[in-house]
Amino acid sequence: MKAFSYWIGMAGITAFAVTAVLVLAPKGIDLFSAIVLGIITAVGGGTIRDLILDVQVFWAVDLNYLWVAIVASLVTFFADARLTRKEIFRLMLYVDGFGVALFAIQTVDKAWGMDFGRPLAPIILGIITAIGGGLMRDVLAGRQTLLMTRELYATPVLIGCTFYVALLSWAPDSRFASALGCGALIFALRAAAIRWDLAMPNWLMTKSRPG
Amino acid sequence: MKAFSYWIGMAGITAFAVTAVLVLAPKGIDLFSAIVLGIITAVGGGTIRDLILDVQVFWAVDLNYLWVAIVASLVTFFADARLTRKEIFRLMLYVDGFGVALFAIQTVDKAWGMDFGRPLAPIILGIITAIGGGLMRDVLAGRQTLLMTRELYATPVLIGCTFYVALLSWAPDSRFASALGCGALIFALRAAAIRWDLAMPNWLMTKSRPG
Amino acid sequence: MKAFSYWIGMAGITAFAVTAVLVLAPKGIDLFSAIVLGIITAVGGGTIRDLILDVQVFWAVDLNYLWVAIVASLVTFFADARLTRKEIFRLMLYVDGFGVALFAIQTVDKAWGMDFGRPLAPIILGIITAIGGGLMRDVLAGRQTLLMTRELYATPVLIGCTFYVALLSWAPDSRFASALGCGALIFALRAAAIRWDLAMPNWLMTKSRPG
Repeated sequence: MKAFSYWIGMAGITAFAVTAVLVLAPKGIDLFSAIVLGIITAVGGGTIRDLILDVQVFWAVDLNYLWVAIVASLVTFFADARLTRKEIFRLMLYVDGFGVALFAIQTVDKAWGMDFGRPLAPIILGIITAIGGGLMRDVLAGRQTLLMTRELYATPVLIGCTFYVALLSWAPDSRFASALGCGALIFALRAAAIRWDLAMPNWLMTKSRPG
Repeated sequence: MKAFSYWIGMAGITAFAVTAVLVLAPKGIDLFSAIVLGIITAVGGGTIRDLILDVQVFWAVDLNYLWVAIVASLVTFFADARLTRKEIFRLMLYVDGFGVALFAIQTVDKAWGMDFGRPLAPIILGIITAIGGGLMRDVLAGRQTLLMTRELYATPVLIGCTFYVALLSWAPDSRFASALGCGALIFALRAAAIRWDLAMPNWLMTKSRPG
Repeated sequence: MKAFSYWIGMAGITAFAVTAVLVLAPKGIDLFSAIVLGIITAVGGGTIRDLILDVQVFWAVDLNYLWVAIVASLVTFFADARLTRKEIFRLMLYVDGFGVALFAIQTVDKAWGMDFGRPLAPIILGIITAIGGGLMRDVLAGRQTLLMTRELYATPVLIGCTFYVALLSWAPDSRFASALGCGALIFALRAAAIRWDLAMPNWLMTKSRPG
């Protein structure tokens, strides 16, 4: 089971890096920036989490996270022009969703196990881990961050992490099943958002108006 | 006295979150982003401070900071359309000024007590705590940060923290009175800036010109 | 030798702060923002490094880094209008290159000595230290970051740090000579880029196109 989540993790890191490069390529970026932004997107959120938890950053403990992010960025950089981007990109969004679900649940689990600010702080850390890297990428690349769009990216994470914390509180014995279920929930919600282009409904938006 | 500063702190957190949502609402943001940006604005600066001081982040020690930020963001989100914004906003600016003064002085006091890079580093940390959250909010929301405006927001903090450090050095016995006085000074300067729309004078600005 | 690299370090900090203020002055910034952004540019990258390495931030250990950054920012702020900017700016770019080379190699050396995620993590930290402060400055000032330009700024750092790590692995006895050589290499590449306005070649760029 550990091995399984390790490999999903690596697939998630790959997807984070690949989508980062594909998203930024149209702006015209150089090889070095592609790798840097690929790495930041892939490991940025988890880095903030580890700093807050005051544990050694995960990519220094296991360098494979960095290697995978670098190779994925490199390959995407050189293959970018040749790829029929749309299909690959869509596929990558789903793998990205897998990664988001895994990292979020892993983070909640880790913080919960450390008794870190239960019950609320683990949820916050789950969200930071899931979206932190993408936020850094967009800020550094001068793009609008997902916090200012209607995309359903972080809301599934919030829902899944909240459920997981509730289950950890009320049914601590079925920790593994809860993790699996809540991870699947995050992925399902995210996949649905990708598949049907779901966006935030109007009543959950403030009215845009001249400030 | 502890209880008093605790309640001012909660009022400050509330004001940080409320002003964040009010400032961003006209851009059209969703409920989730409102809460995330409310939290970041409220606790972002203190989080950087705690990471640098290498102590556990304050919102994991006492979850009330997070709860208050979440509830304040939520209420503001749903009440936004109905509020006569201008009056509330102005009131919130003053409460925000209270919070800024309190957090800045608390931070200087904490870092000074830890003998952390006296005398300069405590002042730097005071400023980071006071403006860090707002800077993160503006960067993530794609707004111009206060560092690029003429608003008198951080300068009162600099003045108050510097005075406080001077008093801690030269009159260590009257620590409490000094804290109170310097906190009041920060609030007074900030309130004056809000009341009379004070801005940086020209001679303290570089001349804007084509770069 | 320690003293020598200490003085280069201070010169580098000075150059970071001076170039920050010179770059931002045409936008019209106030004295306070000039100092804050000067400090952030000068010590920002090293601060992230120290947080990740979980050691006390270097500017709290030795306040001279802060003092130098503050004085350099102040002097530049008031002298800005009078300076024939172009010559000074070009000179400062070279000193900045000195600083970048020194801080990058120092960081690799420090992380390597701590056995921190060898061999890859020290290179990553070297790059973070060299460019982190500048990235923060540009994000806070609303400028395009160097990751989105073709400027050859970080690539020399990547090359030099990679060489240094290779030499540390294969010739650990000649650590000092390796550090000197790789530092010189970074500076030489950066100086060449400044001197001849070198930019990333086309084949190392993705094609800019409507996204």
